[in-house]
Amino acid sequence: MRSITIIGTGNMARALGTLALAGGNTVEVMGRDHTKSADLAKALGGGATAGEWGAVPAGDLVIVALLSDGVVPAVTHYGDALAGKVIVDISNPFNATSDGLAHREVTSIAREVAKVAPAGASVVKGFNTVFRHVLENGRPDIFIAGDNAQAKAGVEAFVRSLGMRPLDAGGLEMAHWLEGAGVLTMGLARHGVGGWDFALGVTELPAA
Amino acid sequence: MRSITIIGTGNMARALGTLALAGGNTVEVMGRDHTKSADLAKALGGGATAGEWGAVPAGDLVIVALLSDGVVPAVTHYGDALAGKVIVDISNPFNATSDGLAHREVTSIAREVAKVAPAGASVVKGFNTVFRHVLENGRPDIFIAGDNAQAKAGVEAFVRSLGMRPLDAGGLEMAHWLEGAGVLTMGLARHGVGGWDFALGVTELPAA
Repeated sequence: MRSITIIGTGNMARALGTLALAGGNTVEVMGRDHTKSADLAKALGGGATAGEWGAVPAGDLVIVALLSDGVVPAVTHYGDALAGKVIVDISNPFNATSDGLAHREVTSIAREVAKVAPAGASVVKGFNTVFRHVLENGRPDIFIAGDNAQAKAGVEAFVRSLGMRPLDAGGLEMAHWLEGAGVLTMGLARHGVGGWDFALGVTELPAA
Repeated sequence: MRSITIIGTGNMARALGTLALAGGNTVEVMGRDHTKSADLAKALGGGATAGEWGAVPAGDLVIVALLSDGVVPAVTHYGDALAGKVIVDISNPFNATSDGLAHREVTSIAREVAKVAPAGASVVKGFNTVFRHVLENGRPDIFIAGDNAQAKAGVEAFVRSLGMRPLDAGGLEMAHWLEGAGVLTMGLARHGVGGWDFALGVTELPAA
């Protein structure tokens, strides 16, 4: 059992909160609008609580479930309240047509979050390659990346509690390519798979 | 049955040549060193032929199986000999540590090939996310990208002749993210999967 705080009150916050509770974790939700967080906590049930925007999160794992534009500002706003926390960035900084990234540099939202995160906080990228309804209805592979092994181990344990397989892609520099895998997933949905009911994953060779 | 020309005489040329013949296609190989192409054609058997470096390829589908540094120079050298051909770029332009791309711009080898390809030639990116021995021993998903629908349909038919599933990721701009998926695959091999016996692929949700 892990203690999870979700920053955000949208569809992805709801999906992850539901899954986290089903996986036996505790859940706190924090929204800029406290009414929305309180409503979401109530809807989630299972002892979910609503925290104050900007306060120290109850959870050790803090999932930032905001649109990509909002992630760095939120982490900046929280500041030292996130000291010692594992910050999980799940965002997809798509360009306007969702066929590329909004930034043209080799960076990532996760990397930019790490720049503004307080001392002792670690950043892990994850969950961004999966459409919400696939997360809700499937058991997709969850790709993660980050520089802190202990932080990644915590996220991996959380992913396993959801009945899903965590796949470590490497250090935080790999978050750029995970964001690219989000772009690729959009491209596949529009062209190669012809639908949204799939996830990128890993298929192992049958044992020889 | 399609007619395939493979430019290159290395391990990937051999693997693709073997698979192409097994899939009922005709195969021509072209190497800078004609002795090597003749040897490879002989080793492949199945009526495989060796063409002259820089001559008009016999195949409609021309797979450039060279190290990434050599792809653009080779296509430039071939020039008008490739007019009307479908050029398949399978390269991975990794940086020195294989945890990023050699270029930092949002481009791809496929995009650079398209810039030097002659009129009427089309470029399709594909096969770059798959380790050679997985291609030889598995049935991995083959991601492709390109701007010409007819060219992609030809590559898709070729992929199916190998018993594999082609997955169209979109236009040539997506080749950048396929090259990134190559980087991601390296990262997963080193960290998350702990081995080389896997491929990136797509898992569909069970039907509701």
